[in-house]
Amino acid sequence: MIFRQLFDKATSTYTYLLADKQTQKAILIDGVLEHVERDLKLLHELNLKLVYALDTHVHADHITSSGHLRDKTGCKIGLSIHSQVDCADIQLKHDDVLTFGQQQLRILETPGHTHSCLSFLCGKRVFTGDALMIRACGRTDFQQGNADTLYTSVTEKLWTLPDNTQVYPAHDYKGISSSTIGEEKQHNPRLILNREAFIQHMSQLNLPQPKRIHEAVPANMRCGRIES
Amino acid sequence: MIFRQLFDKATSTYTYLLADKQTQKAILIDGVLEHVERDLKLLHELNLKLVYALDTHVHADHITSSGHLRDKTGCKIGLSIHSQVDCADIQLKHDDVLTFGQQQLRILETPGHTHSCLSFLCGKRVFTGDALMIRACGRTDFQQGNADTLYTSVTEKLWTLPDNTQVYPAHDYKGISSSTIGEEKQHNPRLILNREAFIQHMSQLNLPQPKRIHEAVPANMRCGRIES
Repeated sequence: MIFRQLFDKATSTYTYLLADKQTQKAILIDGVLEHVERDLKLLHELNLKLVYALDTHVHADHITSSGHLRDKTGCKIGLSIHSQVDCADIQLKHDDVLTFGQQQLRILETPGHTHSCLSFLCGKRVFTGDALMIRACGRTDFQQGNADTLYTSVTEKLWTLPDNTQVYPAHDYKGISSSTIGEEKQHNPRLILNREAFIQHMSQLNLPQPKRIHEAVPANMRCGRIES
Repeated sequence: MIFRQLFDKATSTYTYLLADKQTQKAILIDGVLEHVERDLKLLHELNLKLVYALDTHVHADHITSSGHLRDKTGCKIGLSIHSQVDCADIQLKHDDVLTFGQQQLRILETPGHTHSCLSFLCGKRVFTGDALMIRACGRTDFQQGNADTLYTSVTEKLWTLPDNTQVYPAHDYKGISSSTIGEEKQHNPRLILNREAFIQHMSQLNLPQPKRIHEAVPANMRCGRIES
């Protein structure tokens, strides 16, 4: 399999490109609008055919490139069935499987950061969006976030994956690019807490609103189409 | 093998952590001083024993963490024999091999960005420093840089590696994290030029001096010890 991690410095967002070597069919996860030309160029240079543009959730910090990718490549856009994003071609739900060539990607519903967060499992890699981050997790104070729900998603779904599963989050703010399930179980300072302590911790973060939330969420409900 | 790519946003520098799973012996390549605590914490959490801190070259844009890593872990510092960095424990030269547990790392001299640049080959990964970057290469206008020499390093040394060798550079400014030798042979806009055109192109870049060169180079000649 071809695998590339891509980065947006402005929002510390990771985008992932996965492709099947034999058929050249590709999936892009969490594309960032400002990098759509970079990503299209890479797809072209690697001679890849984009079949799906997926988002782990309706992002509040950046605008997705999915709509623009669909215009240019004819790919299908996939988002959680719970996200109510009408422009998506596929409404994804727990245990759905997307096939790209000889490869498969399984959908895991991991709500809590938002009510419609997904993780994607592909072989030994899991793309966890803002549910599980490296030594961290997504905040739970907007977009129907819920700390209790997030705790369940991580400890009852992600923790059941093998310890050597590689964790690829949607963001990292310290420059670490990946982790493993085993490592996070042992060292994630939030998720080694018990449920009550986790909920209390998350309720006390007092974070400012993301700068672009009022622009990003409406745009992402339109698959990144700012102009419509 | 354990493998981690780490990132410094301020200078878009990649640091690499490689470790042998059986013996837990590790190598860190191109550590950045500002991230020494992050990297020591990661080594500790992964229960790794750092045996070597290596730099691909005497960097002009950031200060190495090698001296501080040696103080904290007892690792040995390795740099090119041509770099004349007296504080290094090991003077590396072409075709030298460093062993860490069951793993081996082979030294390739790839001068041109500076006169003492190294690349490191470990299995199917090559760490190319500023010799070969993704669709780019290091500038050749200071620290005894030489475009003719760099062209030889890339086309006569790196291009001889198998096409599927994964390329991990010291920097990327567009958020792309890796490439392959085959991809760069085909798509690197500078290195698909012939030698004369490459030399002419590199002579016309007219880049400003790196902001921190007068601080970074002297500090790196002391393995990152600012205070001595």
